[in-house]
Amino acid sequence: MSSQFDVLTIGNAIVDVIARAEEDFLVTHGITKSSMTLIDEHRAEMLYAAMGPATIISGGSAANTAACIASFGGKAAFIGCVKADPVGDIFAHDIVSTGVAYGTAQMAEGPATARSFILVTPDGERTMNTYLGACQNLTEKQIDPAVVSAAKVTYLEGYLWDPPLAKIAFRKAAEIAHKAGREVAITLSDSFCVDRYRAEFRDLIKTGTVDLVFANEHELKALYETADFDTALEALRAEVKRAAVTRSEKGAVIIEGNTNVVVPAHPIAGLVDATGAGDAYAAGFLHGYTNGMGFEKASRLGALAAAHVIQKIGARPGRPLKELAQEEGLM
Amino acid sequence: MSSQFDVLTIGNAIVDVIARAEEDFLVTHGITKSSMTLIDEHRAEMLYAAMGPATIISGGSAANTAACIASFGGKAAFIGCVKADPVGDIFAHDIVSTGVAYGTAQMAEGPATARSFILVTPDGERTMNTYLGACQNLTEKQIDPAVVSAAKVTYLEGYLWDPPLAKIAFRKAAEIAHKAGREVAITLSDSFCVDRYRAEFRDLIKTGTVDLVFANEHELKALYETADFDTALEALRAEVKRAAVTRSEKGAVIIEGNTNVVVPAHPIAGLVDATGAGDAYAAGFLHGYTNGMGFEKASRLGALAAAHVIQKIGARPGRPLKELAQEEGLM
Repeated sequence: MSSQFDVLTIGNAIVDVIARAEEDFLVTHGITKSSMTLIDEHRAEMLYAAMGPATIISGGSAANTAACIASFGGKAAFIGCVKADPVGDIFAHDIVSTGVAYGTAQMAEGPATARSFILVTPDGERTMNTYLGACQNLTEKQIDPAVVSAAKVTYLEGYLWDPPLAKIAFRKAAEIAHKAGREVAITLSDSFCVDRYRAEFRDLIKTGTVDLVFANEHELKALYETADFDTALEALRAEVKRAAVTRSEKGAVIIEGNTNVVVPAHPIAGLVDATGAGDAYAAGFLHGYTNGMGFEKASRLGALAAAHVIQKIGARPGRPLKELAQEEGLM
Repeated sequence: MSSQFDVLTIGNAIVDVIARAEEDFLVTHGITKSSMTLIDEHRAEMLYAAMGPATIISGGSAANTAACIASFGGKAAFIGCVKADPVGDIFAHDIVSTGVAYGTAQMAEGPATARSFILVTPDGERTMNTYLGACQNLTEKQIDPAVVSAAKVTYLEGYLWDPPLAKIAFRKAAEIAHKAGREVAITLSDSFCVDRYRAEFRDLIKTGTVDLVFANEHELKALYETADFDTALEALRAEVKRAAVTRSEKGAVIIEGNTNVVVPAHPIAGLVDATGAGDAYAAGFLHGYTNGMGFEKASRLGALAAAHVIQKIGARPGRPLKELAQEEGLM
């Protein structure tokens, strides 16, 4: 069956508002470092007033992944909800101009477009405070079966468990994809997100609702409630078809049955802003995977994309990833 | 007389919408490279739809200078008009959170907050397309005499000649400043801006309405309609009290009477986005100048600030300039 898209990603459609902050700021405002915390509109206004001058750039985990895939020259689509407001216009402009197919209608009514207030500490770590807003409008109505059926892989973010109705959209998309003979991938998103939805995430893996799992070391340990990486990895191996587990500067491990592929991280000159590292890795991996490259090459593309986005502000590429990959001899 | 502020800057209050673009894009859209072109709202919408994914960050030439002065630890104030709309909120948040005193009321009515659509070509050059919008509301009403009188230097941007009524505000501010025994500075802003208002700019200099002139090499040559730098510099010397002329990687020349101070540019690893180089130079120079440093040290601070902002996206500092200056042993 021909495929119009390499990857469809479905996730929260968010615009990032990024500012530098000292460690003290996090402590004063009771914010858990390096995590994603959900906030309401009142808290959003309070934090924005308190934080420093900001850079505004489109974000959203799965949307970042779609943008990076398009930047590699891949065929990507995205589904996610924004409102017809100025921030929603920014989100739509950026994802469409990246070359991603984005057909979700902007809502005329309801909560404002989502914003994530991201605090980048001097060590380059990012701490996210997300107002979900219009993301809560994502239901199965927004899942276009034609788009899901036309994508080799449908990729979903674990954060979709946060808006109350989005998990219905998630499950419907997975069902359509599998009926069309396609694959379904998920990223576990955040260790606190895993804590909130551990049983459901494990069920998605065990029942084969997802074929490919992306996780970082912290998320994997949270999923299996262990402090030991190898224990967690073997627990995942016993339940999953295949998975890519990232370990920051230690690189990534790809597992499938008894197969282990270990790929080093791509070297960087200096960490500027860790926002979007996992999203970019997933993009590179999926671009390679859906274009018939092996696990090792796919993982190297992921590592390259991650290294690029963490050396700049924001989670979207600063230059075409295809050019970077060609310079590195990876494409 | 005590001074509450080192520098008050007055200018167009603009939010920058910055995207990478190939040289072809400029040609296709008939845009003059490296200049600032004024556009209407229709053209703004057309350009935004055509341009790539954008980074949104507060800008405006004089506002950038105020933000950089505050980042050096200086006492800065800013006057400039935005509307009470989401983009105006972004501008106000960013300048206030930088530590700049900003008291201009956001307009409830009239045109939208100004945006500059900035195209950064692969060589790092920036080309600006500016929709002035609410900047056109700047009149003498917005000039608070108490703030002008309390600032050692009132700094004005040449771009203020573009909104029809702002030059009245400009002249009023200069008059108040001089009555209070303060100094007035101007930046010539852009060689095309100089072409539009050459006679008026020369008059401001010859009549002593401005005490200190900032210009780059292109602007200076445009002012005196000559292709020879030394000819232009001597023509300026004959008319001006003092001036700082920047020459990109060739550094800067400070003139006052027969005094010449030549200061090299600060080395950079690589040009990312030239937006705001002149604004940052003026900030460093003014911070040094208003704090009793000599021309050479003031110019070095300017060169340091310029080098910092052109190695990142956007015209505002990515980290405190005071820290950078301390690391370089300049403060």
